[in-house]
Amino acid sequence: LWNNEISTLLKTKYPIIQAPMAGGITSSKLVAAVSNAGGLGMIGAGYMNPFQIRNQIREIRELTSNHFGINLFIPSRVETTEDEIITSITLLQPYREQLSIQSSNQIKADDFFKVFNEQVQIVIEEQVPVCSFTFGIPPIEVVDKLKRANITLIGTATNVKEAMINEESGMDAIVVQGSEAGGHRGTFTPEIDGSLIGLMSLIPQVADQIKTPLIAAGGIMDGRGLMAAICLGAKGVQMGTAFLSCSESSAHSLHKQAILEATDDQTAITSAFSGKLARGIKNKFITEMEEHKALFPDYPIQNGLTSDIRLAAAQQNRPEFMSLWSGQSPMLARSQSVKELMNHIVSQSEKILKP
Amino acid sequence: LWNNEISTLLKTKYPIIQAPMAGGITSSKLVAAVSNAGGLGMIGAGYMNPFQIRNQIREIRELTSNHFGINLFIPSRVETTEDEIITSITLLQPYREQLSIQSSNQIKADDFFKVFNEQVQIVIEEQVPVCSFTFGIPPIEVVDKLKRANITLIGTATNVKEAMINEESGMDAIVVQGSEAGGHRGTFTPEIDGSLIGLMSLIPQVADQIKTPLIAAGGIMDGRGLMAAICLGAKGVQMGTAFLSCSESSAHSLHKQAILEATDDQTAITSAFSGKLARGIKNKFITEMEEHKALFPDYPIQNGLTSDIRLAAAQQNRPEFMSLWSGQSPMLARSQSVKELMNHIVSQSEKILKP
Repeated sequence: LWNNEISTLLKTKYPIIQAPMAGGITSSKLVAAVSNAGGLGMIGAGYMNPFQIRNQIREIRELTSNHFGINLFIPSRVETTEDEIITSITLLQPYREQLSIQSSNQIKADDFFKVFNEQVQIVIEEQVPVCSFTFGIPPIEVVDKLKRANITLIGTATNVKEAMINEESGMDAIVVQGSEAGGHRGTFTPEIDGSLIGLMSLIPQVADQIKTPLIAAGGIMDGRGLMAAICLGAKGVQMGTAFLSCSESSAHSLHKQAILEATDDQTAITSAFSGKLARGIKNKFITEMEEHKALFPDYPIQNGLTSDIRLAAAQQNRPEFMSLWSGQSPMLARSQSVKELMNHIVSQSEKILKP
Repeated sequence: LWNNEISTLLKTKYPIIQAPMAGGITSSKLVAAVSNAGGLGMIGAGYMNPFQIRNQIREIRELTSNHFGINLFIPSRVETTEDEIITSITLLQPYREQLSIQSSNQIKADDFFKVFNEQVQIVIEEQVPVCSFTFGIPPIEVVDKLKRANITLIGTATNVKEAMINEESGMDAIVVQGSEAGGHRGTFTPEIDGSLIGLMSLIPQVADQIKTPLIAAGGIMDGRGLMAAICLGAKGVQMGTAFLSCSESSAHSLHKQAILEATDDQTAITSAFSGKLARGIKNKFITEMEEHKALFPDYPIQNGLTSDIRLAAAQQNRPEFMSLWSGQSPMLARSQSVKELMNHIVSQSEKILKP
């Protein structure tokens, strides 16, 4: 049951990957605990600078000798007018006031292409065994460079078209992200609406068109989801919310609490936090910003504009303004250790059905 | 594998139900073919009058001696202002012109509560073995009457809350409809957005709260979907698009063709056709009406206002104005007989995993 293309490729005991949740959730303790328990721990490095990345890689290596991975965001050209930015700043001002944020809103003029190339360089220098990508496909020369460095590459797709683009680019495995998934949608083709495809539809349609082994992501929390994903044609699973709720994750305690208390119908898709669609527990910020959704600047501009709001909300314990990312299965989340979660997944899977 | 609570309850060989697609798709030939092949054929009687229902029941009985079922829509009070109706008529006028519809738009003043009670009466008189409901729960006296007549009752839920309401009402089984599903959303609690829950999340969360056996619906087209649904905690499946594409269904040939040619990212949720959310292949009508979505009158008013547009579009072979209902797995649809589809599901299921 457990020895398949994905566990072989990733050199793990189980084909179970901890989703690379960006924004300070994938502590070294979490990543190492997952890898030590037979899964693949992943660093969500999308927002991290090279220095932070190198530090965390070294920290993880002190906690585990098993394989682990890292995820990078693919940058894209952004076209945002000054008017759009001013509108967004105006819309966000009431939240800044409620959180007593004094400083004025600053737009970081980071060169995201430069940052990405630096991140790739660290991944190669530090010989991270696995590197996955969200929001697109890396340039061919980056793919070549990583492959020459013997790093296993994983892409992300939210529909058949994106899976085919991933396969053509030479990815070793592809995460198929269903509409159930928490956090950012990995969609990189423009037809965003039609790409909210549930895993029950997404996995078999992709599996019929693609030879690259598939990793299912979205709403999977236990052995039932893992076995269902395998029936549908995936070879492994990537789980976010389930690991976020574990004691080893560095998610804010109010974020964990919000997930543990939420019902199935309480998540929503919003682009209010970052300019890109993402799923989280519906709160005041998501609800109030919904009517302005046509006005948000693109990612990462909006992400930059809300960053001190999210930071202040976390520091002041105000979950109504935090990005409480969650998939559609919060009622299956448990407060437990990574070891307990992994044991539960494995024993439940083995009990459900045998190959 | 096949002998479980659902097949026992429905007295079928397999726990496979043909979705009761309303609007002239569930021909007697289709319903009987499904029941003859070991599944449960279902009449989509939501829009039918008592005379049509009685006729079809008798027609089916000449084609099969196996169990079959019927689906009714639960009526609800509608509050629509004359202004909303005039706005909608204005928005629909260009389509009436493109289809050269001469007659003026007429609103039928049907008493939907009266129609529902008449439908229930026929179901009892004709002793239809199984009756399912969409858009809510029947009044308690209707549930009692049907149960006294020994009719098996199936409700529909799109989230945990709705499943609990169904269980409390005494339904014998509950269809859990995922976001992947084609046609109308069965949602009857107001939080519509949050109820677009994918089956990977919906089935296990409902299964943990509910004792009533569950039937999964949405995007399931073959043995992979059936086995996945069973892993997740369902006991059976209800399939619409897969049966709609079969030769025995009376769906318009251009509807079948649109499904067979569509990709996974080409469906959309719209309320433009009926006033209730439903999933279909994105066409000109859906795309153009999207921007007016806040303006449509409630179901069944909007449904009545678009009925001659849909009829004329079908007669004139204009798929761009037809309601091309489809789930999110059109790439798994095949042009085949019901017998071929059922054989494929069964043999594929048995091959995937054994219990």
